[in-house]
Amino acid sequence: MNIGVLGTGVVGQSLATKLTELGHTVTMGARRADNETARQWTESGHENARQGTFADAAALGELVVNCTAGAASLAALEAAGEENLSGKVLLDVANPLDFSRGMPPRLSVANTDSLGEQIQRRFPEARVVKALNTINHQVMVEPHRVPGGHDVFVCGNDEAAKSEVRELLESFGWPRDTIHDLGDLTAARATEGYLPLWLRLMGRLGTADFNIRVVR
Amino acid sequence: MNIGVLGTGVVGQSLATKLTELGHTVTMGARRADNETARQWTESGHENARQGTFADAAALGELVVNCTAGAASLAALEAAGEENLSGKVLLDVANPLDFSRGMPPRLSVANTDSLGEQIQRRFPEARVVKALNTINHQVMVEPHRVPGGHDVFVCGNDEAAKSEVRELLESFGWPRDTIHDLGDLTAARATEGYLPLWLRLMGRLGTADFNIRVVR
Repeated sequence: MNIGVLGTGVVGQSLATKLTELGHTVTMGARRADNETARQWTESGHENARQGTFADAAALGELVVNCTAGAASLAALEAAGEENLSGKVLLDVANPLDFSRGMPPRLSVANTDSLGEQIQRRFPEARVVKALNTINHQVMVEPHRVPGGHDVFVCGNDEAAKSEVRELLESFGWPRDTIHDLGDLTAARATEGYLPLWLRLMGRLGTADFNIRVVR
Repeated sequence: MNIGVLGTGVVGQSLATKLTELGHTVTMGARRADNETARQWTESGHENARQGTFADAAALGELVVNCTAGAASLAALEAAGEENLSGKVLLDVANPLDFSRGMPPRLSVANTDSLGEQIQRRFPEARVVKALNTINHQVMVEPHRVPGGHDVFVCGNDEAAKSEVRELLESFGWPRDTIHDLGDLTAARATEGYLPLWLRLMGRLGTADFNIRVVR
C-alpha cells in the first residue's frame, strides 16, 4: 500500500520505518521536498522509502498518517492539500500539546473540542481516525516493548476507515482485543485529554515505555 | 479515627460505609442536619455512623472526605467552614462534571486548572489530597471487585497528608504498589482530565466495574 506520513519527527520516523518494514511504500512528507531529516531517513536503508512535500506525501498515499506536532498539524494538512486528502483514511496520531508556557505542556484544545475534530471539520472529505496518540512512538509500532497486555484506542466517524486502521494496528502487533473502539470522533476529546496523565506518569516512572491496560 | 464525609450520594455512602466497617466513626454531612438519605444511612445498621450538617461533619472529622458533586463542592466546603477544615487532610474524590449540556458531561474546569486546585486555593489551610476520582465508587472501597492489578492515583502539596491517604487506601485493600503518587496538586488536572476517557470506556464496556493498570 502507498502511505503518506506527514512529519519527520520521532513519531513520523517510527511509523514510517515500521510501515516500510511491513512492505508498504512510504512517502515521508515535510514542508520542503529536500527536508534533511527525511533525506537521511530515505537513505538509511529502508526499502520503499520516499520523501517529498506534505502535498507529495498526501497525493501519493492511499492512506495518510498525521505525525506532525499538534500545534502545526492544521497548517501541515493545509499544505498537504484538501484534494489530496479527500476520501482517504487520515490516521491522526498527533496531540495538541502547547509547550509555549513551559513544562508540562498544556493542551491547546481540550474538553469541548479536540484536534481530531478540528481536522475533521476543516477537511470534511477526509476520513479521520484518531488512534495511537496515547502511546509513545516506539511502543506504537512495537507493542511488545511493554510486556503484558495493554491497550490502544481508536475513534472516528467512518466505520470502514476505523476497520482499516484496526487492521493496520494488528499488523503492528496489537492483538485485536487490545484495540478499543471508543465511538465517534468526539472521543478524541477523551484520548487527547488523557495526555496530561500520560505526561505525569512518564515523569514519575522515568520512562516512556509504558502504557495502560483497561482491567475489568 | 473520626472522619467527616461530605455528601450523601453513592460515592459518599460507599466511602462512609467502608470507613465505618473499618472501625472509624463517620459523620455524614449534608446541607441540612436532618437529610433523609443520611438518616437512612445512619439507621442502616452501621456502627459509628452519625449525621449532621457539612459543618458538623467537618468539625467532628479529623480527616474530611469531599464526596459532593463537583459542581457543588466549593459551596459545600464553604458551608463546612474554613475553620473546620484548617490543618486537616481533605481527601477530594470529586470530579468537576458539568451535566448541564447533556451527556456525556463536560468538565467545568480543565487543562489549566482543576477542582482540586480550586479547593486548595479557596482553603489554603486545608491539606488537600486528590485521589480515587478515577474509579467507580464501588471499586474505590473494594478494589478486588475488579480482578487483577489496577491502579489508583494520589496527588497533593502536603507529603504527610498524602501518606495518611495512602494508608487509608491500603486499608481499603489497595496494595501499596498500585498507589501512584503523581506529585503536587497540579496533577489533579491530569486525573480529572482522565474522566472523559473513563466515561467513554464505561459507555463502551457497559459497566463501571473497571479500572486502568499502568503497564511497563
